[in-house]
Amino acid sequence: MSNEHFVRNIASHDEEYSRWYTDVIYKAQLADWSLVHGCMVIRPYGFSLWENIQQLLDKRFKATGHQNAYFPLLIPESLLAKEAEHVEGFAPEVAWVTRGGQDDLEERLAIRPTSEAIIGETYSKWVQSWRDLPILINQWCNVMRWEKVTRFFLRTTEFLWQEGHTVHRTHEEAREEVLRMLGVYQDFVENELAIPVIAGQKTEQEKFKGALETFSIEAMMGDGKALQAATSHDLGQHFSSVFDIKFQDMDKEMKYAWTTSWGASTRLIGALIMVHGDESGLIFPPNVAPYQVVIVPIWRSDEEQAQVGAAAQQVQRQLGDFRVHYDGRDEYKPGWKFSEWEMRGVPLRIEIGPRDVAARQVTVVRRDTREKRQLPMDGLSATLGDLLREVQGDLLARARTFLSDNTVAASSLPELQEAIAARKFVWAHWCGRTQCELAVKEKTAATIRNIPFERDKAPGSCVNCGQPSTGPVLFARSY
Amino acid sequence: MSNEHFVRNIASHDEEYSRWYTDVIYKAQLADWSLVHGCMVIRPYGFSLWENIQQLLDKRFKATGHQNAYFPLLIPESLLAKEAEHVEGFAPEVAWVTRGGQDDLEERLAIRPTSEAIIGETYSKWVQSWRDLPILINQWCNVMRWEKVTRFFLRTTEFLWQEGHTVHRTHEEAREEVLRMLGVYQDFVENELAIPVIAGQKTEQEKFKGALETFSIEAMMGDGKALQAATSHDLGQHFSSVFDIKFQDMDKEMKYAWTTSWGASTRLIGALIMVHGDESGLIFPPNVAPYQVVIVPIWRSDEEQAQVGAAAQQVQRQLGDFRVHYDGRDEYKPGWKFSEWEMRGVPLRIEIGPRDVAARQVTVVRRDTREKRQLPMDGLSATLGDLLREVQGDLLARARTFLSDNTVAASSLPELQEAIAARKFVWAHWCGRTQCELAVKEKTAATIRNIPFERDKAPGSCVNCGQPSTGPVLFARSY
Repeated sequence: MSNEHFVRNIASHDEEYSRWYTDVIYKAQLADWSLVHGCMVIRPYGFSLWENIQQLLDKRFKATGHQNAYFPLLIPESLLAKEAEHVEGFAPEVAWVTRGGQDDLEERLAIRPTSEAIIGETYSKWVQSWRDLPILINQWCNVMRWEKVTRFFLRTTEFLWQEGHTVHRTHEEAREEVLRMLGVYQDFVENELAIPVIAGQKTEQEKFKGALETFSIEAMMGDGKALQAATSHDLGQHFSSVFDIKFQDMDKEMKYAWTTSWGASTRLIGALIMVHGDESGLIFPPNVAPYQVVIVPIWRSDEEQAQVGAAAQQVQRQLGDFRVHYDGRDEYKPGWKFSEWEMRGVPLRIEIGPRDVAARQVTVVRRDTREKRQLPMDGLSATLGDLLREVQGDLLARARTFLSDNTVAASSLPELQEAIAARKFVWAHWCGRTQCELAVKEKTAATIRNIPFERDKAPGSCVNCGQPSTGPVLFARSY
Repeated sequence: MSNEHFVRNIASHDEEYSRWYTDVIYKAQLADWSLVHGCMVIRPYGFSLWENIQQLLDKRFKATGHQNAYFPLLIPESLLAKEAEHVEGFAPEVAWVTRGGQDDLEERLAIRPTSEAIIGETYSKWVQSWRDLPILINQWCNVMRWEKVTRFFLRTTEFLWQEGHTVHRTHEEAREEVLRMLGVYQDFVENELAIPVIAGQKTEQEKFKGALETFSIEAMMGDGKALQAATSHDLGQHFSSVFDIKFQDMDKEMKYAWTTSWGASTRLIGALIMVHGDESGLIFPPNVAPYQVVIVPIWRSDEEQAQVGAAAQQVQRQLGDFRVHYDGRDEYKPGWKFSEWEMRGVPLRIEIGPRDVAARQVTVVRRDTREKRQLPMDGLSATLGDLLREVQGDLLARARTFLSDNTVAASSLPELQEAIAARKFVWAHWCGRTQCELAVKEKTAATIRNIPFERDKAPGSCVNCGQPSTGPVLFARSY
C-alpha cells in the first residue's frame, strides 16, 4: 500500500471535517461501535489517552484534597425524582432496569445519568456535625444517557467520566470549591491537552438541571464549533434540602449543607482529536499521547537489519522515561510506517538507518511541523525531553492562534448571523433574558457558550432586542 | 469515649466472626449499603485499598504485555445467549434494561455479568489474520449479578473487577497465557496482599460456565473458610466458534482462535479484612494499606502543642515516600486515636510527645505485634521503609502458619466431615466423578476448592465411593 493510498483512506480534514473525524478514529484504532446503539468500544490506543487523562486529572484532584470513592450504578426512580428540575432534565434520557434475575422489580431503577441523587442520599447519612465537613469526594465511572444521535466520544449512550461531589458548611466555601475545580480543569486542559479554553458562567437556560449556577470551560474545535470541555456546578442547597443533608453547626443550629459537583468525560478525547488533527490525521500533545515517540528502523539487507535493530533497541532502552513504541514489523516498509504513525498522531518519530548507526545519531521528525533533525545518540533522553516540551508548548500556541483568529465581535444580529455561519466564536451583547437567547439560537443555531470571566465590561445593547447589556457574551455553535 | 468502649463496639473476632466483619467495615468507614438491594458504596478509605490493588495489578498486567480497553456495559440478550452453557450459568442473575429514554426496547439488554459475549463479538471484527494475534486486553469495570443474599465486598449485586480477555493462534499459547495470569495473581496476592494461596484446577462442576477449564487461587480466611481470590479460564474454542473469531493462519487455512479470560474483583478487599484482622479490628499489609503510617502528636499544654506539632510536621515531610496521615484533631485524646487507627488497620503508628521532641526521636508502634520502639528522627525514612517491609513479610508468614495449622488430611468421609466442621482445609482423595463431589457437598457443605498443582500424587481411594483416586484434592467450605 503506498503512502498516498493510505492517507487517501481518510476524508479531507479541511473539506469534510465530520467524516475526517470518524475516519481517523477508525483508522487509528481509537474506538469502534458495538451492537448496542450508541455504545462505543474504546480500543487500547484510545483508552491509553483516557488513562493518561485520568492520571493527570486524578493527581490534581488529590493535590486539592479530594479522595476517590465508588457509588452504585443504579438509582431508584423515586430517588432520582426528588429534585424536580433534575429529574425533568435527565428522565427523558434514562435507561431503566425493570427486571433483576427472575423477578420484575417493584420500582424501576435508572442507570445513573449522573450521581447527584444517589450520592446526596448517601451523604445525608454521613453528615451530622460541622466537624464532618467538608466532604471532598470524586468518582471515576461509567454513566448512561439514551441518545438518539450519537458520535464517537462526543455523544455516546454510555460514556466514562469523573464526577466530583462535595459538601460544605457555608455557601462561600462551596463557591470557592466550584471555582477552584473549574481552575483545575482549565489548567489541565490547557497545559496537558494543549487546548486553550474560555472560562465563564453558563446562562440560566444552559446550566445543569438542578444547579444554582453552572460554570464551564469552552474550547474551539478545528471547524470553529465550541465544545464544553468541563463543568463545575454550585448546587446551592437544592440537593441538600431534598436529600436532607443537614448538620449541627458550631452555633448548635441545624443547617442544610451546601453542595457542588463537577465533571469531565471521554468527550475530552474528541476535543483532542478535533483541536490538533490535520490532513494527515491525528496529532497528540506529548503529555497525553499514547506513544510519545515511535522508533522506525530502516534497513535493506539482513546484515543492516541486525545492526540497525541492535542500535534501535539500545536507543529504546535509553528512553525509558518516555512512552516509546518500537515498530519492528517486517511486513511493512518504513515509508508506510511513517504515514501510519503520522496518522496515529505520535508527536516524534525516530528513524534509524545504517548511516545513522555509523554516525551514532538518529533522525527525529516532529509530527506537528514535520521538521527533521539529526540528534546524537548520546544524551538523547535529555534532548528528546526538551523537544517534547517544545512540541507541547507549540501545539498550545498554535491552538491559541487559531482561537483568536476565529473569534470576532458582532454588534448586530445580521453580523452575528454572518459570523456564526462563518464558524466563528462571536462576542456580542445580550440583555440577560432567556427569550433573547432562544431567539438568537433559533435564528443562528448558536447558543451562549458562557458569560466569560474575562470580558470587556463596557455596556452595550442586546443584539436581539436592543435593550441594555452589561458586556458581551460568547456565542457559538457547539457539539 | 474510652478505648474500651470504642473497641467494644466491634463484635468479637474469635466468637462472632461474621458480625465482626460487618462491624469493622462500618466502623472503619470502608463501605456502606445503598438504597438498592445489595449495591454497596465503597467509601474513600475502602476505595483507597482498591486503588492500590488496581495500581499493583495493572503494573503486572502491563509488564506481561497487556493493554487496557473499555467495552460496553450492555449486552443484547441474543448475544449473551449464543454460548449455551454461558447463558445458562449467568442468565438467572442478570439485571435487564427494558426501556431506554421514552421507548420500550425491542430486545432487552443485560447489564454485563461478565463480558465474554460482547468482547467475543467485537474481537470477531478485529481478527482476520495470524498477524492480528495475540490480542492481549484487560478492562477495569463494574459488573452486576442479581444476588439474593449479599455481604460487603464478598457478594454484592454490583461489584468492581478487572477482566482480561485474550485471543491466541494456538491452544498451547492460550494455555500458557492462562497459567501465566494465574501466576501473576498468585504473585500479587501473596506478595502485596500478604495472603498465601493454593493454585490449582477447578473441577468440571466448579468451573466457569462456558470454559474448557478453569484455574483458581484459593485463600483461607480467618474462620477457616476458603475464598476464591482469582480465576483464569482456558475458554478453548467455545467462544471463538460461537462468536466467529476466525483467522487466516500462516498456512493460509482459516481457523478458529483460542481465547482466555481471567479476573479478580473487590472480593480481594474482603479477603484482606478477613485474613489479617484481629480482636482490635483491621490490619492492612503495608503494600496496599490506605495509610502506611499515622502520626499522632501528644501534648498537654498549648506550648507543647506548638512544639510537638512543628516536629510532627517535620517528620511527615521526611516521609514523603510513604502514605502518611497526620492526625492533628484536637477533639480526641491520643489514646482514643490509638484505638481508632488500630481498628482501621494502619500498619505503623508514630507517637510524638515533648520527650520525643527533646530526644530527637519518635515512638513507633507496630499494629500487628504492638511492639513499640524508639527510633531517631534522623534517617527515619530508611528505618521505616525497612520496618514496613518487615511487617509485610511477617503478615504473610503469620498467614502461612495459620493456613498450614488449619489444613489436615482425611482418609474417610467421617474424618472429612469432622475436619470440615472444625473449619479446616482438608486434603482427601476423590475419584474424579461429579456425583461424589456433590454427595460430599451435601453431607459436609464443603466443595472441592481446586485440584492443587502441588499435591501428593500417591494413589488412594475416594472418600465417598472408595474407587481409585490419583491423588488428594482440596475440600473446604467457602465464601
